[in-house]
Amino acid sequence: MFIENKRYEFGPVEFSEKEIIAFAKEYDPLDFHTDVEKAKTSFFKGLIASGPHIFNYIYKNYWLPLFKDTVICGKEINNWKFLKPIYPNSKVYTIVTILQVTPNHGKQHIEVKWLFEFKNDTGELFQQLEMIILHKLTLTSIKN
Amino acid sequence: MFIENKRYEFGPVEFSEKEIIAFAKEYDPLDFHTDVEKAKTSFFKGLIASGPHIFNYIYKNYWLPLFKDTVICGKEINNWKFLKPIYPNSKVYTIVTILQVTPNHGKQHIEVKWLFEFKNDTGELFQQLEMIILHKLTLTSIKN
Repeated sequence: MFIENKRYEFGPVEFSEKEIIAFAKEYDPLDFHTDVEKAKTSFFKGLIASGPHIFNYIYKNYWLPLFKDTVICGKEINNWKFLKPIYPNSKVYTIVTILQVTPNHGKQHIEVKWLFEFKNDTGELFQQLEMIILHKLTLTSIKN
Repeated sequence: MFIENKRYEFGPVEFSEKEIIAFAKEYDPLDFHTDVEKAKTSFFKGLIASGPHIFNYIYKNYWLPLFKDTVICGKEINNWKFLKPIYPNSKVYTIVTILQVTPNHGKQHIEVKWLFEFKNDTGELFQQLEMIILHKLTLTSIKN
């Protein structure tokens, strides 16, 4: 199951103005994430999604359903780079790659470094981040 | 306003079981964040807060009210380390330090590297992270 260089592709997904505003009101209430009119005068000249929105969405809706039963705990998030803004109705393609696997057979767990890349339809990066998770080393995770 | 080594202290804050579960159901629905009974059989032997919960809470309720009018955009999050679990009703003390300031007078903005540290009442770290934000270089931010 956890094999270095294994890739998963999710989406594309896109967020409506309404979804961008709803997320940002809960967790990142900056005008250029929550107010269409005020956003027009911002650096980005229009409403954009809160930085963490796309990762939160993909993690919850695509990554967790595959891996949640194996998760012991999260250890680190690194190199989360916000490179390009995500405007409403932009298609976001997610590629998740297993960068590194560090097994510990004695303790029945395994440390996995995951790379999340979020790209537009011409392959340019919106964002990327690395996440280190401690997983259960189950029979399934060895066999698949 | 943005001076290297300047520190801000927030809290202490604590999360109830109900708050931990509500946050996790939205963004991190793992059993040990959402189900008190199932959490007893987990690695942590009880319910714990989702990793990002404390940063989201402090960012929204303490950091943004001070700095939101200066924010142009987020650039990076680095070295987010989840070191100790946050159980219900644990007091969390937050120290935010300005690690580095890179001004760009020509472009009227300033890049600030912020360190967030979340500690318990004996000074041990629950978590830490670094966040790089592009801020407006307003008259206020020079003078204060």
